[in-house]
Amino acid sequence: MTLDPVLARIDQDLPQATERLLELLRIPSISTDPAFKADCDKAADWLVADLQSIGFTASKRETPGHPMVVAHTGGDGPHVLFYGHYDVQPVDPLDLWDRDPFDPQVEDTAKGKVIRGRGSSDDKGQLMTFVEACRAWKAEHGALPCNITIFFEGEEESGSPSLTPFMAENRDELTADIALICDTGLYGDNTPAIITQLRGLLGEELTITGANKDLHSGMFGGLAMNPARVLAKVIAALHDEDGRITIPDFYDGVPELSNELAAAWDDLKFDHKAFLGEVGLSEPAGEKGRRPLEMIWSRPTCEVNGMWAGYTGDGFKTVLPSQAHAKISFRLVGTQDPLAIRENFRKMVQDMMPADCAVAFSDHGASAAGQMTTTHPAFDQARKALSDEWPNAAAFVGCGGSIPIAAYFKDILDMDAMLIGFGKDDDQIHSPNEKYDLSSFHKGIRSWARILHEMTS
Amino acid sequence: MTLDPVLARIDQDLPQATERLLELLRIPSISTDPAFKADCDKAADWLVADLQSIGFTASKRETPGHPMVVAHTGGDGPHVLFYGHYDVQPVDPLDLWDRDPFDPQVEDTAKGKVIRGRGSSDDKGQLMTFVEACRAWKAEHGALPCNITIFFEGEEESGSPSLTPFMAENRDELTADIALICDTGLYGDNTPAIITQLRGLLGEELTITGANKDLHSGMFGGLAMNPARVLAKVIAALHDEDGRITIPDFYDGVPELSNELAAAWDDLKFDHKAFLGEVGLSEPAGEKGRRPLEMIWSRPTCEVNGMWAGYTGDGFKTVLPSQAHAKISFRLVGTQDPLAIRENFRKMVQDMMPADCAVAFSDHGASAAGQMTTTHPAFDQARKALSDEWPNAAAFVGCGGSIPIAAYFKDILDMDAMLIGFGKDDDQIHSPNEKYDLSSFHKGIRSWARILHEMTS
Repeated sequence: MTLDPVLARIDQDLPQATERLLELLRIPSISTDPAFKADCDKAADWLVADLQSIGFTASKRETPGHPMVVAHTGGDGPHVLFYGHYDVQPVDPLDLWDRDPFDPQVEDTAKGKVIRGRGSSDDKGQLMTFVEACRAWKAEHGALPCNITIFFEGEEESGSPSLTPFMAENRDELTADIALICDTGLYGDNTPAIITQLRGLLGEELTITGANKDLHSGMFGGLAMNPARVLAKVIAALHDEDGRITIPDFYDGVPELSNELAAAWDDLKFDHKAFLGEVGLSEPAGEKGRRPLEMIWSRPTCEVNGMWAGYTGDGFKTVLPSQAHAKISFRLVGTQDPLAIRENFRKMVQDMMPADCAVAFSDHGASAAGQMTTTHPAFDQARKALSDEWPNAAAFVGCGGSIPIAAYFKDILDMDAMLIGFGKDDDQIHSPNEKYDLSSFHKGIRSWARILHEMTS
Repeated sequence: MTLDPVLARIDQDLPQATERLLELLRIPSISTDPAFKADCDKAADWLVADLQSIGFTASKRETPGHPMVVAHTGGDGPHVLFYGHYDVQPVDPLDLWDRDPFDPQVEDTAKGKVIRGRGSSDDKGQLMTFVEACRAWKAEHGALPCNITIFFEGEEESGSPSLTPFMAENRDELTADIALICDTGLYGDNTPAIITQLRGLLGEELTITGANKDLHSGMFGGLAMNPARVLAKVIAALHDEDGRITIPDFYDGVPELSNELAAAWDDLKFDHKAFLGEVGLSEPAGEKGRRPLEMIWSRPTCEVNGMWAGYTGDGFKTVLPSQAHAKISFRLVGTQDPLAIRENFRKMVQDMMPADCAVAFSDHGASAAGQMTTTHPAFDQARKALSDEWPNAAAFVGCGGSIPIAAYFKDILDMDAMLIGFGKDDDQIHSPNEKYDLSSFHKGIRSWARILHEMTS
């Protein structure tokens, strides 16, 4: 099957493809908030119907959480599985959005056209690049160029609780020759990137309780324990003056960067001033003595994602809070053991509790870092296909985010995974005003068409 | 005019007096939240009407914030001014209330009958003790025993922004021989207390800003500054290991307890284990080496009343917050200068800001500590009247709370003030399930009847 008519069809069909994406973006499928459960269901139904319309045998598959979408073409040639997620992040703070996050539209900006709305980049826009590539192949040639399974989940933004049980229960159905995952970005604006290492993620929530009720700070202040102060001490103690994390044995399994990788990354000439400048920052704030790219790709972190205690409304309330809370996450690298780190973190915090303070923990997921097997032939095939589409040659890069599914494919299904995506650093994923460049969407579709061609020719 | 029939009338009229208080408690006059502005107005109207019904010339007086209520009897004898506040604290966390905070009722408890509802103790129940005493005098004798001015404000729980301008503009109308303030408590359950020293209060809110938007902790974590961590460091740095506050020059003007006062306070045999045990605590958590009573009455404090950053909803969001916020208050003693402390606090925090973090402050009021002039004859008259009503003799005590109006009466109107109240330590003011003992209400009314009699006979 020839590639050129497929690419021409993609170019011609872009307005319709964009409309389809806008339709999917209008569904507020926020997985972490139970109020949006029906919307997650609706997004899954939409995808099933769309995949059926281009010849997939597609179905919605119930789980204890949000449903999966699984679709097959069958057929000859290599068998690839494509993964994406249809759920999106919450949208607060809503007042910082310039438009309704679920009323998306294509906007003209100084840097070109963008698709604005929650999920446009993470991950609905990205997953639709593959679906649209399939649609074009089917339209031009009446069939896909190989055997394709599509696998979408709806819990990626809330820790994927149903994912590994579902994979284990449907091992035969989901096993393919290689997994393609589209949930990452370009390197810069013009360099397509294939991720070869991912950070793991450990999520912890803690609640420190002092008195059995909020207290009047005049009546009790000075005599009674204040859990907000205790929480602040805990958080302040998690890093030393050099930005290193102080949890015992935390750095067990953190590898030093190899000379080869260090050289390759230096060649990328990462402009950290520009990267930080985009969000109003200027100075690398991580571990002293590390390259900026190490800080985001190959060094572990400990960050406060949320904290709250006492009165947080308008005005002032002279209260000593009964409880103080924090959501803290760790990005992990190398062979760091998430469960050992969880245990050491909890013990360290427990040991810091003064008299009259109790701490309780809850678990928001734990996944180890991932390392890809770049010797699989698909890596070179994809590198060639991407280099043909984009201005610069494709690069093998690290990724600071955590996409535990890559490790699950390896561990549960014994498949290698290849992470390719078309997001940009300024897409504002997880933030207000998320967008996806129309060019990311367009060239992303073309990229998958090329990759499928390269893998089957 | 004789006292006994007035006391008998109070006993007989208690059910009606209680109904009147419940009516006032049903008005949700939360002053700090603009959503309740109309309710503050309604509470003021209710009080004007009630005072008019017992012969006061009463009026609602507009201010830039919530209105004042001012009422006069005119007449001979000493001229006393009575102060209270009709506004109440917010009610969150609402789910910890056992009933609607604004649907008050009299409940039977193991310790006797209580009036349950927001404001029952702080301060609607307390201010009504004086109004009901006046009502009984008027009913029995057709007149009050002296010249009385009543002065209620509606902004006490939100920093009293309109109070001092109003006092200055109405100096002649508000000046009397002495001010009576009912916004404090008994010492223990059976010892009436006259406050002779009050802590001051300084309220500060700070916002630390890092990036210009919330960031993805995978993409930026490790490289970008996290303001929540910076805020935690600031809060942790405000106290040293001995519980002393580290702001430069903070202890300027903090007096050591005199030997006389130390002996008098030791005589009170403060049971800190029981006081703390009531709220689920056990250990004094203040400055090392200080008496528990000093910690709450005569030592300054620095407390976090609220803090928040990032994602605080259900589930988890791997975000690096753009901003972190805290509401911090200081209780002040002796001659500590609130404005100097504000300046030193702000400078200390400013100096702790790392690259890429900016801090902004806002001001939630500043009042110095207060010291009463106990040589005024009213103090001995009240001590005798209170000792006649209650099981134990009245005591001169300190107060950890901040009732800046006492200082304002002195500074603006050149009047001494006497603080007498009937709240109990377990009233849960500023907390869920606030209550006022029916016996506090009843004996409080009787106490004011006796005090008015003692001051005029």
